[in-house]
Amino acid sequence: MGGDRRIPVGVLGATGSVGQRFVQLLHRHPWFRVAAVTASERSEGKRYGDAVRWVQNEPLASEIAELPVLPTAPGLDVKVAFSALDSGVAGSAETEFAESGVMVFSNAKNHRMDPDVPLLVPEVNPDHLALLEKQSFPKGGGIVTNPNCSTIGLVIPLRALHEAFGVNRVHVVTLQALSGAGLPGVASMEIMDNVVPFIDGEEEKLETETRKILGLLNGQGVEDAEIVVSAQCTRVPVLDGHLEMVSIGLDRPATPEEAMEVMASFRGVPQEMELPSAPKRPVHLLSGKDHPQPRLHRDTEGGMAVSVGRVRPCPLLDLRMAILSHNTIRGAAGGALLCAELALAQGWVPGMSGPGREQTLTRRR
Amino acid sequence: MGGDRRIPVGVLGATGSVGQRFVQLLHRHPWFRVAAVTASERSEGKRYGDAVRWVQNEPLASEIAELPVLPTAPGLDVKVAFSALDSGVAGSAETEFAESGVMVFSNAKNHRMDPDVPLLVPEVNPDHLALLEKQSFPKGGGIVTNPNCSTIGLVIPLRALHEAFGVNRVHVVTLQALSGAGLPGVASMEIMDNVVPFIDGEEEKLETETRKILGLLNGQGVEDAEIVVSAQCTRVPVLDGHLEMVSIGLDRPATPEEAMEVMASFRGVPQEMELPSAPKRPVHLLSGKDHPQPRLHRDTEGGMAVSVGRVRPCPLLDLRMAILSHNTIRGAAGGALLCAELALAQGWVPGMSGPGREQTLTRRR
Amino acid sequence: MGGDRRIPVGVLGATGSVGQRFVQLLHRHPWFRVAAVTASERSEGKRYGDAVRWVQNEPLASEIAELPVLPTAPGLDVKVAFSALDSGVAGSAETEFAESGVMVFSNAKNHRMDPDVPLLVPEVNPDHLALLEKQSFPKGGGIVTNPNCSTIGLVIPLRALHEAFGVNRVHVVTLQALSGAGLPGVASMEIMDNVVPFIDGEEEKLETETRKILGLLNGQGVEDAEIVVSAQCTRVPVLDGHLEMVSIGLDRPATPEEAMEVMASFRGVPQEMELPSAPKRPVHLLSGKDHPQPRLHRDTEGGMAVSVGRVRPCPLLDLRMAILSHNTIRGAAGGALLCAELALAQGWVPGMSGPGREQTLTRRR
Amino acid sequence: MGGDRRIPVGVLGATGSVGQRFVQLLHRHPWFRVAAVTASERSEGKRYGDAVRWVQNEPLASEIAELPVLPTAPGLDVKVAFSALDSGVAGSAETEFAESGVMVFSNAKNHRMDPDVPLLVPEVNPDHLALLEKQSFPKGGGIVTNPNCSTIGLVIPLRALHEAFGVNRVHVVTLQALSGAGLPGVASMEIMDNVVPFIDGEEEKLETETRKILGLLNGQGVEDAEIVVSAQCTRVPVLDGHLEMVSIGLDRPATPEEAMEVMASFRGVPQEMELPSAPKRPVHLLSGKDHPQPRLHRDTEGGMAVSVGRVRPCPLLDLRMAILSHNTIRGAAGGALLCAELALAQGWVPGMSGPGREQTLTRRR
Repeated sequence: MGGDRRIPVGVLGATGSVGQRFVQLLHRHPWFRVAAVTASERSEGKRYGDAVRWVQNEPLASEIAELPVLPTAPGLDVKVAFSALDSGVAGSAETEFAESGVMVFSNAKNHRMDPDVPLLVPEVNPDHLALLEKQSFPKGGGIVTNPNCSTIGLVIPLRALHEAFGVNRVHVVTLQALSGAGLPGVASMEIMDNVVPFIDGEEEKLETETRKILGLLNGQGVEDAEIVVSAQCTRVPVLDGHLEMVSIGLDRPATPEEAMEVMASFRGVPQEMELPSAPKRPVHLLSGKDHPQPRLHRDTEGGMAVSVGRVRPCPLLDLRMAILSHNTIRGAAGGALLCAELALAQGWVPGMSGPGREQTLTRRR
Repeated sequence: MGGDRRIPVGVLGATGSVGQRFVQLLHRHPWFRVAAVTASERSEGKRYGDAVRWVQNEPLASEIAELPVLPTAPGLDVKVAFSALDSGVAGSAETEFAESGVMVFSNAKNHRMDPDVPLLVPEVNPDHLALLEKQSFPKGGGIVTNPNCSTIGLVIPLRALHEAFGVNRVHVVTLQALSGAGLPGVASMEIMDNVVPFIDGEEEKLETETRKILGLLNGQGVEDAEIVVSAQCTRVPVLDGHLEMVSIGLDRPATPEEAMEVMASFRGVPQEMELPSAPKRPVHLLSGKDHPQPRLHRDTEGGMAVSVGRVRPCPLLDLRMAILSHNTIRGAAGGALLCAELALAQGWVPGMSGPGREQTLTRRR
Repeated sequence: MGGDRRIPVGVLGATGSVGQRFVQLLHRHPWFRVAAVTASERSEGKRYGDAVRWVQNEPLASEIAELPVLPTAPGLDVKVAFSALDSGVAGSAETEFAESGVMVFSNAKNHRMDPDVPLLVPEVNPDHLALLEKQSFPKGGGIVTNPNCSTIGLVIPLRALHEAFGVNRVHVVTLQALSGAGLPGVASMEIMDNVVPFIDGEEEKLETETRKILGLLNGQGVEDAEIVVSAQCTRVPVLDGHLEMVSIGLDRPATPEEAMEVMASFRGVPQEMELPSAPKRPVHLLSGKDHPQPRLHRDTEGGMAVSVGRVRPCPLLDLRMAILSHNTIRGAAGGALLCAELALAQGWVPGMSGPGREQTLTRRR
Repeated sequence: MGGDRRIPVGVLGATGSVGQRFVQLLHRHPWFRVAAVTASERSEGKRYGDAVRWVQNEPLASEIAELPVLPTAPGLDVKVAFSALDSGVAGSAETEFAESGVMVFSNAKNHRMDPDVPLLVPEVNPDHLALLEKQSFPKGGGIVTNPNCSTIGLVIPLRALHEAFGVNRVHVVTLQALSGAGLPGVASMEIMDNVVPFIDGEEEKLETETRKILGLLNGQGVEDAEIVVSAQCTRVPVLDGHLEMVSIGLDRPATPEEAMEVMASFRGVPQEMELPSAPKRPVHLLSGKDHPQPRLHRDTEGGMAVSVGRVRPCPLLDLRMAILSHNTIRGAAGGALLCAELALAQGWVPGMSGPGREQTLTRRR
């Protein structure tokens, strides 16, 4: 690809469920191109097309299928990497990449709660990117994380409500899709004709990450938001799309109509900057009485928008609603991609002047 | 069956999902035998075996398959009937049967909230049967209802907690099985790779029935319990078994261990009287970190026991837990059967002196 | 849509599973636009968006949602109609439309075996369109049918093999998707954790339609091909995509490699004419040892291409293979659309000179 | 269990899908009791209840849950063992057990085609047990195998037809359940909304095992039956129960009615001897036009009987039919158990005089 001026990027942990999504979404990305893929030792040296057990609905692009699988270690000849690594290895590997001068956009949980690492949802807390200044990696390296898949779908509509009415309590029960468990993930014998009322560590992530993301950045770092979250997480036999049944307590009363208006009109920095992966409307309000549903609405705006329905009063807190988002697009690979677009567009990736930057700067004027 | 001294009963609406369960559970019942089955006009006159689209996991008993399908109207030559009628016809049909002298045990919603109709869960509010005295049907007729399938699973453990600690608030999100929607019920194209966050009328039933069932019977009737319930109901691709993710507010604080002890040791009148369909233990406490699960636990004690797991503190209310019950057995046909057993054993079915009564009286001594 | 020069068409039976696919595929069609939708009496007068229970993965286009649902009777002010009618009404309704001067492209079974009605798969038997000359409808009316969904996927690769080696025997076992049964179609309680080894009338269609489609058109009509077909049809819990396990007997021996080459290089008239809905390659040969699979390959070339894998010798006949096609796109709505494109491009729709014709003629030079 | 006179047996590979079935079926077995369980190194030393990821529909028996998991090596203090070992270790491990004097009844594929090892289906080829005489293990050791799960369901009805009419050709397409792939087995992301037209090695097993099982035992060993089998195997999203769509060529013509009569009246040695796990009728003929179905019929006679339906002529061979059997009961654990019962009852287990033998001998008179 002689004339391809897109920025070469690496995908770390490229054979898993989220890694495959990174590959799929990057394939036609206007700013980035996949230049390197890594995986565990078992796959090293194979063609990516042979190493991966591809489960996406569209075929694997042939030029990426031909890439050799590299070990997950610095030296990839890229300045930007997307991490879909397992938490068992992500912690140290991502630090090593950052130390070697790579800007890592990670979907792994390991560094999310580090005080100097942004836990970023570009529509919600774009200013948290400034935490990168506190990181001391040499040569332009750094780590930016995106939240857990079930947290992302929740905080986008919460952001809109929090600004308008002040959110103080959140009760959430999730019905989460299989792709969130990775590959091979949930055995079919465990989930067919069944649901499982437990996902290891998931409830804690929802309860703590929400507070950091909606927190305020001050001189010391991020001060958690004063929101009490109670989360109960279940796994359901759905391929993609996390549904969340949510009750919300507010500081200032709001009718369902007012809440809907605030969510529907919510726009963030990615929308203003027209970043390539940004949905036109971060939150879609649905009027169907039995909406949103995973299969019908997970792909809204390419899987980057959140769908909200059934907004109504709650006898215990203030409002109830059903929230749906695509867990491996908006909730993982697509979310991390949008983080990278924001970081690049705002100049947080040193020395980067590929087609992306120009395009963005042009747009920003 | 010349020597069969069991009490002949009718099953109203016998071809649907719950009707099939009545037929299945009654087939080997020690007190009752199916003597008549009714269905809609389309099926009238056919053999039951031809009229029904049998979807249970075990074959239909041949002697019941041979019964002719009768119209749903008085004149069945039975004194006891079980109603699995659609709500479109149940209201007037059940009244007509009661007026003709039949004691109707109904799974339909129509009469549940009538002030003089018991909404009965035999372990929870057996004393509510005394409402039958307020009914003015001639010749021993009457109507006893059991609650909605999602309510039954909830109120049994709630009863134990309410007695011990006082329950004042309940937040429940349900993941309900397909069989609860009847037949043909949910189209496969709607629910495969999907969940639906809405079940018509279900949330209202959970919120109101719970209060009546846990209410106090006094001279005027039942006074609703002072419990605020917030319910959100979803349909999931599971054949049988409703899972409920529940948060509970208490009047008096309790640790998860205390709550578990109270639920595990809970016993009711059906256990004391050793009624044929009564589970030995109404609530089973499970220790598996990802239990209860519909496919693994719905058949506990023949589908008549409720399974509870993941009892833990709630950051918003006091306790959280996952509750599972079999929706067409404990939550419908089996629940109504237990109501009939209780009514018979306590002498509420006039003139009835079949093997059931004797057996029960013997046991009671 | 003042400037829309596309040909207005009607969709008959627009609320069902195939009707929805017609609406979806026609929405962005370069030659046609949906100008009228019809349905059963129950839906008449409603907005289409209110009448339909939309189950496609992408939202219903708003301009079509606003169309009023009309009765299924002549007088629609269109010259071309696509029929997704139930076989209970399709027979007479399609005849009436044809008599009123409408060219009907039908997915219903009723007229398929009529001697003067083309049973058309544009890649396979485009010359059969000449049967329209035998039809005696006035004012340019006519009826063109496409085959049953399971037949279409089979005959396309068969055509390539038949030309090259002569096919004399076909043994086929199908694993068919739920969308083939329409809406509400198969109840979820019947198909979850289950397969059903019977589809009413399906085996007969495969056995007879294949012979007509591959037959020779002569002065009298179509002479059936001398191929013995044995079909066994099953329903499986898959949303879209029919898989067929096929054994084939040949007149002249062929190695798997020769057969693969012949199928992979097969092109038909739609490819030569570059019709808008024509796949670039009618048959895709897959090398994955466990391919094709419905979820991975049904959408190949927008659902219009057939995927073939596992080509290998058969101990009983000559060759075995697995064939997959999208049953509501290539096997129904998309197939009928391609028939209409062919008919229009070849001048079989009298008086029609919309953008379609010009575009096509241009392309043909 | 002081008074338990049942024969102590070991279960090798007890944590997998088939191993769990052995444990479940042995729990209430009248002749055998589980005295030892083995698994891979990872599980050694744990309680069985902790080591196993139990996926059966009924709870694990508590006395078996308490057994320690032992290494899979001789020295178990049992004379009889059931092997559910993976083929990666079964070959040598089973030989070692046999050499140590244990009679091994194996579900693994490794020794099935050994010339001196019986490939046994007790109703079909009970005389093949005599191959044990050719085995040279000391101290009463030996190896008896049962066939692949998809083969067992096929050969039982085939046996009846072969005796009566002579079978010469079999064309079979299988729709196989998930439990046949073991645990974790098929990933849910691979099989939901999907079917997979390939199971590694399965087609070869069906094609070769069938010929050995239906072969004749003579002085030299088993002479394969002269039957040409063409098998195509698919995996479908069903928990238990293999469905097979079969076409059969016969030496002597038979009507469907004659074939049904022959299969329905078929009885074998296990039925004559009334072995504890033997179904009363090995083959159940079903009249429902869309029967057999996995969920409805897999549990017929405790999962030990085969269900057959849709018997009708085949345009290519002679007869077609649909055959269903429970793959982990009749097709694996239950089948091996029946082999052991036959071997014990016929005196092939030296020195064995537990309750089983006496009971059997009594019955046999």
